[in-house]
Amino acid sequence: MDRKNIPRATVRRLSLYCRYLAEIREQDIEYVSSRELGGGIGTNAAQVRKDLSFFDRFGTPGRGYPVGFLHQRLEQILGIDGRRWQVAIIGVGRLGSALVDYGGFLKHGFHVVAVLDSDKKKIGQTVKSLTIEDVADLKAVIERSRVDIVVVAVPAEFAQRVATQAVDAGIRAVLNFAPATLILPEEVNLRHVDLAVAMESLSFHLIR
Amino acid sequence: MDRKNIPRATVRRLSLYCRYLAEIREQDIEYVSSRELGGGIGTNAAQVRKDLSFFDRFGTPGRGYPVGFLHQRLEQILGIDGRRWQVAIIGVGRLGSALVDYGGFLKHGFHVVAVLDSDKKKIGQTVKSLTIEDVADLKAVIERSRVDIVVVAVPAEFAQRVATQAVDAGIRAVLNFAPATLILPEEVNLRHVDLAVAMESLSFHLIR
Repeated sequence: MDRKNIPRATVRRLSLYCRYLAEIREQDIEYVSSRELGGGIGTNAAQVRKDLSFFDRFGTPGRGYPVGFLHQRLEQILGIDGRRWQVAIIGVGRLGSALVDYGGFLKHGFHVVAVLDSDKKKIGQTVKSLTIEDVADLKAVIERSRVDIVVVAVPAEFAQRVATQAVDAGIRAVLNFAPATLILPEEVNLRHVDLAVAMESLSFHLIR
Repeated sequence: MDRKNIPRATVRRLSLYCRYLAEIREQDIEYVSSRELGGGIGTNAAQVRKDLSFFDRFGTPGRGYPVGFLHQRLEQILGIDGRRWQVAIIGVGRLGSALVDYGGFLKHGFHVVAVLDSDKKKIGQTVKSLTIEDVADLKAVIERSRVDIVVVAVPAEFAQRVATQAVDAGIRAVLNFAPATLILPEEVNLRHVDLAVAMESLSFHLIR
């Protein structure tokens, strides 16, 4: 399977299916139909079948998907089956420090192993038992802490520079929270989290 | 147009098209093809045409979409054309306080007008010139500040309770950041922002 062929929206839904399956698995539900699974995340049965068809055949005719098995497979597919991902957060402002102890990251195997900032007053202080390091030492920190994923949480005007530095240091996965569009080499996986997008989906409905 | 017919993923992409159009509009680009517009947000031309077809006919054959006009229309459609949305944030932990001054909200017309917490030590303190109020007074705060949208940023175990209280006070739009699944009446618009979903899209690609 070539990753290029899988739409981004499908990968996003795989995470949501995975969450929903974890929930119903706790309730000891053994099988789930594509309709129920879709309903659980706000999509339809056809979309569920299409999304899962990129991978294996999961369903049993007439019974639906086996919950435990599908949950496990999705965790494998997403790379969160007990694997440990090492994350560095650049920018220890309010958002950056909120992300350091965001429970959802740890729960899914993303461990914040380094935090960096350019503010001399912050460098040397600790956040959740991590010492804030100088972003000027980014390359050394990435190598020493074997960082897989870099989170950019700096003000918009510095975002491109720190992201480029991270990529130059060998990083191939960047999660950007700064309200800025980053340009990075095509082989780098880049995701932009724009918190206003979810808000706009609410305003879209409120005016109707 | 019935809002029920518009897929969630389409509404999400409308926000992303809107961002991209704002950018190229600043560069004085007058027309954009569906291929370019799709490329700008990581989707394809057919998807762009399908998403926009829920609304008007925007394109001019052979020339593409007029950037300024389409941008303006999408702002209208999303309800962010100069309209002011009043937001209350419940839970002034790290994430909650990061959201109070998240630039992306203000830029798109979302004004945080109230912050609430249950912690007696926090109540009465100020965040960005807003006085933290007691969540026990939620209904009064929502009425007084004419709140449109409530952001839930409390620990998972309290999320359902405060969301239900907000809905009982008349709120019809809830943005949930707590790692918990909320159950609210169908007429309430509810969005869950799970920050680990974007992270998993990176791990999905890193293992391939």
